[in-house]
Amino acid sequence: MYKPILGITMGDPTGIGPEIVAKVLSRKETYEICRPLVVGDAGAMKGGIEIARVDLRVNPISRVSEAKFRFGTMDVLDLKNVELEKLRHGEISPMAGKAAFEAIKKVIELAVSGEIDATVTAPIHKEALNLAGYHFPGHTEIYAHFTNSEDYAMMLIVGELRVVHVTTHLPLRKACDMIRKDRVLKTIQLAHDACKMLGIGSPKVGVAGLNPHASDGGLFGWEEEREIAPAVEEARSYGIDVEGPIPADTLFTKAKGGFYDIVVAMYHDQGHIPLKLEGFIWDSEMNQWKSVKGVNITLGLPIIRTSVDHGTAFDIAGKGIASPESLINAMEYAARMALKRREGDRG
Amino acid sequence: MYKPILGITMGDPTGIGPEIVAKVLSRKETYEICRPLVVGDAGAMKGGIEIARVDLRVNPISRVSEAKFRFGTMDVLDLKNVELEKLRHGEISPMAGKAAFEAIKKVIELAVSGEIDATVTAPIHKEALNLAGYHFPGHTEIYAHFTNSEDYAMMLIVGELRVVHVTTHLPLRKACDMIRKDRVLKTIQLAHDACKMLGIGSPKVGVAGLNPHASDGGLFGWEEEREIAPAVEEARSYGIDVEGPIPADTLFTKAKGGFYDIVVAMYHDQGHIPLKLEGFIWDSEMNQWKSVKGVNITLGLPIIRTSVDHGTAFDIAGKGIASPESLINAMEYAARMALKRREGDRG
Repeated sequence: MYKPILGITMGDPTGIGPEIVAKVLSRKETYEICRPLVVGDAGAMKGGIEIARVDLRVNPISRVSEAKFRFGTMDVLDLKNVELEKLRHGEISPMAGKAAFEAIKKVIELAVSGEIDATVTAPIHKEALNLAGYHFPGHTEIYAHFTNSEDYAMMLIVGELRVVHVTTHLPLRKACDMIRKDRVLKTIQLAHDACKMLGIGSPKVGVAGLNPHASDGGLFGWEEEREIAPAVEEARSYGIDVEGPIPADTLFTKAKGGFYDIVVAMYHDQGHIPLKLEGFIWDSEMNQWKSVKGVNITLGLPIIRTSVDHGTAFDIAGKGIASPESLINAMEYAARMALKRREGDRG
Repeated sequence: MYKPILGITMGDPTGIGPEIVAKVLSRKETYEICRPLVVGDAGAMKGGIEIARVDLRVNPISRVSEAKFRFGTMDVLDLKNVELEKLRHGEISPMAGKAAFEAIKKVIELAVSGEIDATVTAPIHKEALNLAGYHFPGHTEIYAHFTNSEDYAMMLIVGELRVVHVTTHLPLRKACDMIRKDRVLKTIQLAHDACKMLGIGSPKVGVAGLNPHASDGGLFGWEEEREIAPAVEEARSYGIDVEGPIPADTLFTKAKGGFYDIVVAMYHDQGHIPLKLEGFIWDSEMNQWKSVKGVNITLGLPIIRTSVDHGTAFDIAGKGIASPESLINAMEYAARMALKRREGDRG
């Protein structure tokens, strides 16, 4: 079986990124599904290995062709951009923001040029990014920018619950303004295509309403009738099995129960609340997350990008207790999608 | 132990109301915690007993004092307002809407006059209500109207997850407009008081943001800084243990994990999505709900009102398969709150 090369960014080195990357690369299962290549700073990654207390040797390289892809060795495409003596865990730093950004830019280049099969990203800190002079709300927008993508969307997956968002990092009022037929239609298509890419034969798409009770026949808003319903109708005319607009509060429970293969959510929290409720488990006694399952996938790009579904977790950075679950999920999806794409390319 | 008298409305008789009321009153446990009195039409309730296939005899009465409160007998304060020969399950009917409305009005009167200790409502159908000439978005607004209540709020409970809403049945854009400091502050106070009423000694309140990432320091909206944060600060100055605004997607998972005793949600779906995801379970094979846990409680009224957290379920009305879980939960909460209030009244 072909093992796809996955480029993994280290994330913001003041956060839990290097630690969870080290934890994932210390698992034999990781090397059974892919050939992992870390993109970042070799010194910061050595720090991550120490924090994670795992047995890995770093192989700093400057070209993909120099990678060994051997379990026990962590190949790092070394950008040499972290000043270790300045690095403080849990503190916002423009130096760290710059290093994190450069890793993302590099991994995108490698994927676009075909040197790697897919990209996986560890968490970054937006404020650090901004302080370093890069004004993007998040990874998704950086990827869209460097790949000149216009019709892209954020998909989140936890177990069998899959959600694609029509809007994401916008004020809620602005998100309401963006609920337009064309945009909803494109997102339905991306959702349908994503299911196909994940190997779901006849995907059933459920489209959420924007307003409570999906406006209850126009009593609480007009977007359902004027924008969402016409988009659903047109998507159906293209042969997509899609229903909606459906009241958001019952839609997600039905999707969780398997009635829908994927949900189209209108705004960030509409999709993120149910997904994190499923994937994140809070441990009240330990006062920390017990579980952080979930994958974030950017749809509509020319390259594959999956990501963890959590942040830099400054409160626990450097302590060695961060959970690698979400990154493991992200690697598995990246590998699966890379193989599927390869199959497609070969006809 | 004092057993509070609970007035239970039959709900819209074309829906599952009479059936689930019959199921709950056929449980011995119900009579162990309260003295139940159904308010509605005796004939429609006989129909509900038949559909539910339970062994109950109806005692139609015209005054509370005539009730027997004996297990095996269903006391019905008979409003004689359903024409049985016209009743069709699963069909919207102004006659049924009128009957459902009159039962609500009556149960409110009984509670206000002190003849009963608390009220519990079965589901109604808003369109039927409207066709009958009553223009209310739901129970909550009917209760507010007939009790002249201004500062009221909807609380939902599933297990240990409790949520109070700042806004409910409004277009999402309009809900954004309603997020004002005073309104948020009042809801925080109602949430705090509700926990006390439920016997939670030192309640910890978590307040959600309106925008994604609670606006991320003002990047995605201004309501957090200008309206929500000042309300939280003022509530804290009154001695309430409250935190916020917190990004909604992580807030609910922490509340579920026990970190917060109650959540203040800004809009309908923000609170309803996580609660229904917890309380409702969809059975994919049977193509129906396997479980519908959850209670809806109106806060800020002079009387106690709890309710089921689901609708009339027209698709399964008359089939005998509706789950009484949510109504059982609602009865338990009504009884608990009535006892707590009685304790309070006696000092």
